[in-house]
Amino acid sequence: MGDLHMEADAEAEAESVNGHSSSDDDRKRLDIYPLSCYYFGSKEAIVFKDETLYDRINRMKSKYAAYGLRTCVEAVILVELFKHPHLLLLQVRNSFFKLPGGRLRPGESDIDGLKRKLSRKLSATEDGYESEWEVGKCLGMWWRHDFETLMYPYLPPNAKKPKECTKLFLVRLPESRKFIVPKNMKLLAVPLRQVHESHKTYGPIISGVPQLLSKFSINIVDI
Amino acid sequence: MGDLHMEADAEAEAESVNGHSSSDDDRKRLDIYPLSCYYFGSKEAIVFKDETLYDRINRMKSKYAAYGLRTCVEAVILVELFKHPHLLLLQVRNSFFKLPGGRLRPGESDIDGLKRKLSRKLSATEDGYESEWEVGKCLGMWWRHDFETLMYPYLPPNAKKPKECTKLFLVRLPESRKFIVPKNMKLLAVPLRQVHESHKTYGPIISGVPQLLSKFSINIVDI
Repeated sequence: MGDLHMEADAEAEAESVNGHSSSDDDRKRLDIYPLSCYYFGSKEAIVFKDETLYDRINRMKSKYAAYGLRTCVEAVILVELFKHPHLLLLQVRNSFFKLPGGRLRPGESDIDGLKRKLSRKLSATEDGYESEWEVGKCLGMWWRHDFETLMYPYLPPNAKKPKECTKLFLVRLPESRKFIVPKNMKLLAVPLRQVHESHKTYGPIISGVPQLLSKFSINIVDI
Repeated sequence: MGDLHMEADAEAEAESVNGHSSSDDDRKRLDIYPLSCYYFGSKEAIVFKDETLYDRINRMKSKYAAYGLRTCVEAVILVELFKHPHLLLLQVRNSFFKLPGGRLRPGESDIDGLKRKLSRKLSATEDGYESEWEVGKCLGMWWRHDFETLMYPYLPPNAKKPKECTKLFLVRLPESRKFIVPKNMKLLAVPLRQVHESHKTYGPIISGVPQLLSKFSINIVDI
């Protein structure tokens, strides 16, 4: 086992609660597999831009002037542990948490860009990533309407030219695969319950993921 | 004009921000129409069960023993005002806020039950409600896993027999219609921004609605 770290989960002993019958055709099923189905290893570190908030805003401004709206694509990936869905998060420099993903290149499609980013951060090789990730529907979008504002899940009426958009996509895992993570990042499996209840730790986008997933019927597959 | 009250919205003068191009096919469009397209009137009051929290929990317990899981269906309905989407909420007894909707009868489908409830709370007549409401996809589900617990957008692992489920559905409005509201309820149009930022006023289910809607591209139709 490499870089997979598990957040504490106090009441994790009970039985599955899935399989409720429902007359609602809109309720979609999402199969998830035990954490033990996956292999976790590490690879060379990724170089991060080490910059101040001031530098970052300046970089965003010059990029915006050159390319317009900045679009980030991020993946919502679940595994099962202790009969509860866990969300995969990357932790950078032992401090902040992020969903796997990143910024699109100019002209790149959402799906291609997300597959490229996922391969860079979660796969052994960055070649042939096309078929490796099953990217599903867009679950939600968050907008930054000016360089120095927070992100919101809507566009305010005065935001004529938003500066950044972050799109969340459901990524369904196969029954088995390898995750190979850069040495300077940690991959965590965090209980959905903890994600929902820890707004301050994870921020509004990540802590809102359980809501975005709530329309799915999560089916824990026994292997 | 009858029972439509508008919550304050300080910065509501700017232009529409819709019509951003997107290469993402998953981005769905949601047409919304100006508040002025709708007529608001009132009708006879609805009788509420006036009960203590203790009575309410006891009633839930006996209903659960008789019928099992209690399912509530609620509608997410938007109108446009000051170029910003507004969510329709009912205010009961000048205190708490709720989405229009209510509890299903035993055996009733989600869609039929929601149409019945919407007609009861928002229409002149409760007959012929079948065709009057365009109920869309389920946006999310919240669970109460025991009688005295809060609701969560997931089932905890120890919740073998959840007691209540609240399902949120998108309801698309036509270009024009009448809303006829019981005299003892107020229908409010609340800016999405205010809904998102006022967790304490509206509670977790309502304040999470902007996130659930964030995958849609909201298109303000000029009439």
